[in-house]
Amino acid sequence: MIKTDILIIGAGPTGLFAVFEAGLLQLKCHLIDALPQAGGQCSEIYPKKPIYDIPGFPEVLAGELVDNLMEQIRPFQPGFTLGERAETIEKLNDGTFVVTTNKGTKHHAPVVAIAGGLGSFEPRKPLLDNLAQYEDNGVAYMIKEPEMYRDKKVLIAGGGDSALDWSIFLADVAEEVTLVHRRNEFRGALDSVEKVQHLKDQGKIKLMTPAEVVSLHGEGKLEKVMVRNTDTDEDTEVRVDHFIPLFGLSPKLGPIGNWGLEIEKNAIKVDNALDYQTNIPGIYAIGDVNTYPGKLKLILCGFHEATLMCQSAYQRIHPDKKYVMKYTTVGGVTGFDGSKKEAPKAVVKAID
Amino acid sequence: MIKTDILIIGAGPTGLFAVFEAGLLQLKCHLIDALPQAGGQCSEIYPKKPIYDIPGFPEVLAGELVDNLMEQIRPFQPGFTLGERAETIEKLNDGTFVVTTNKGTKHHAPVVAIAGGLGSFEPRKPLLDNLAQYEDNGVAYMIKEPEMYRDKKVLIAGGGDSALDWSIFLADVAEEVTLVHRRNEFRGALDSVEKVQHLKDQGKIKLMTPAEVVSLHGEGKLEKVMVRNTDTDEDTEVRVDHFIPLFGLSPKLGPIGNWGLEIEKNAIKVDNALDYQTNIPGIYAIGDVNTYPGKLKLILCGFHEATLMCQSAYQRIHPDKKYVMKYTTVGGVTGFDGSKKEAPKAVVKAID
Repeated sequence: MIKTDILIIGAGPTGLFAVFEAGLLQLKCHLIDALPQAGGQCSEIYPKKPIYDIPGFPEVLAGELVDNLMEQIRPFQPGFTLGERAETIEKLNDGTFVVTTNKGTKHHAPVVAIAGGLGSFEPRKPLLDNLAQYEDNGVAYMIKEPEMYRDKKVLIAGGGDSALDWSIFLADVAEEVTLVHRRNEFRGALDSVEKVQHLKDQGKIKLMTPAEVVSLHGEGKLEKVMVRNTDTDEDTEVRVDHFIPLFGLSPKLGPIGNWGLEIEKNAIKVDNALDYQTNIPGIYAIGDVNTYPGKLKLILCGFHEATLMCQSAYQRIHPDKKYVMKYTTVGGVTGFDGSKKEAPKAVVKAID
Repeated sequence: MIKTDILIIGAGPTGLFAVFEAGLLQLKCHLIDALPQAGGQCSEIYPKKPIYDIPGFPEVLAGELVDNLMEQIRPFQPGFTLGERAETIEKLNDGTFVVTTNKGTKHHAPVVAIAGGLGSFEPRKPLLDNLAQYEDNGVAYMIKEPEMYRDKKVLIAGGGDSALDWSIFLADVAEEVTLVHRRNEFRGALDSVEKVQHLKDQGKIKLMTPAEVVSLHGEGKLEKVMVRNTDTDEDTEVRVDHFIPLFGLSPKLGPIGNWGLEIEKNAIKVDNALDYQTNIPGIYAIGDVNTYPGKLKLILCGFHEATLMCQSAYQRIHPDKKYVMKYTTVGGVTGFDGSKKEAPKAVVKAID
């Protein structure tokens, strides 16, 4: 059982920044995210896209913002349960919570902060009869451990940035990379399209277009797939160890929707007049996952909400203590790892 | 009469970021600030101090943050009335406002956003009989135009960073710089103390400690001051064109306190459940100047408040239009200066 002060569901920018604000209050955080890495949409969907409305950054790539936040929270040593989806919540008699993921990992905390963005990102799956039986036995919808594809035969399907970028990456890792797309045209960064062209010319990526995978075969685990050319209707058998359809992710509120929280327009209602708490005391919702009058789904709003949430969480966890806020410019930042950042001290010195 | 969409009182980080959010809504802003430059406290009080709790910046100097914000809002061409204090407000019959400064400059806008921080910074003044008669005739409490001191005789009083830094700066500009402090010890950045020591050794700064200015003399304008050594009680006459006491600034809510706004604990009460509007419709208060349940005087909270304020201001200014928010990552940023920032477009391209 993982124990922490604030259990944060969702490791996007809002959830990550909550770790920092909690840390200033000496509260420890643990984050759960269905994606295999921290950063939420910023890492998974648009890491190379610029954001222009983060205060103080005339322009910042989404991936850079996440890197910066990870650096900022490092002194507070957050825990992570990645690649697992928060599934159920149980309120114990003492008012604390146990959250269990789809893989059975249990987390125990007095405060739960849902920073779930638009929901957990669920992959769009191809319509193939026996798809489910090969999931985790050769079929995956996200690449969690690139090393598991070393010297394997991999077939990627898709025509966007993810399909292009992973084909490029795995061209150097896998024994064989086949990229299948139902159109001849790919849609992505010019740079990526050109790299795939180059790797194809070098024979490092095998391209099959316009085509789609029409059936999966193998005993116990995936061994081969049938790829149909959609122009000629001709089928080709391809021996593969892995089939990775990258058809995009779509966000779903998912199991959180059944936790007894008040939901409005697919978002969780919170008390924005005070602390972004939900209708269940001790459960907060911050960032894009919440709603209130005038709500804007902006990262900068999530930062503010996370900050006020932490103050309220502190009072819930330490009902008898009064926290006096100190500015970081004055008090510095003291990490749980023993690190200390602070402004250079003024000297008092005679001039003679 | 200066006309604008949102008149922002206070050009600190919150006021500056409001310009950006307003700009995304195609609203123009004009800022009034009592200080001679933008940035509020960050520029005037602690430009070289690190801030650790701006989201996405593990560390940023206050002055850098202001520079970044100025760069971020540049496309939206804000106007500035600097070195003047907003003094009076008048609501016209059509619901718009006229704000007049202490120097008589008039501003007209349908929306007023008070982003006044802890108030307008008023200098602490020395207790000298005829001080007032020399104000703007040789006595100044802030340095607005360093060039006006070129080839002049300047006497600076004070023992902190401002006194040290301006002595260093003016040593290269003025004909003569005298630094008077009532103690032998100065309190400031080590680097600054050492530089003053060095300039004193070179004869570029004349140092008088422990000492204080005890009287001012001159016909019409300041011509000389009497400096008393507080150890020996001996008086020395010093011929000067300018006397600049830098004894620190203390924030005062000031005239805004008489605008009929609901005040609590020296701050302006706002409706945090919706749009940070005050009790007077059309007047908003954002950042450290406002108060509401759970308020934290943090820059990052001011950013959020500024953003929600702009949405509400938009509806007030354009009651018949409905604004549909577009993410900057998707829609880019179109400046009033004709500039356009946007993400590189994806290409649709065949690989053959």
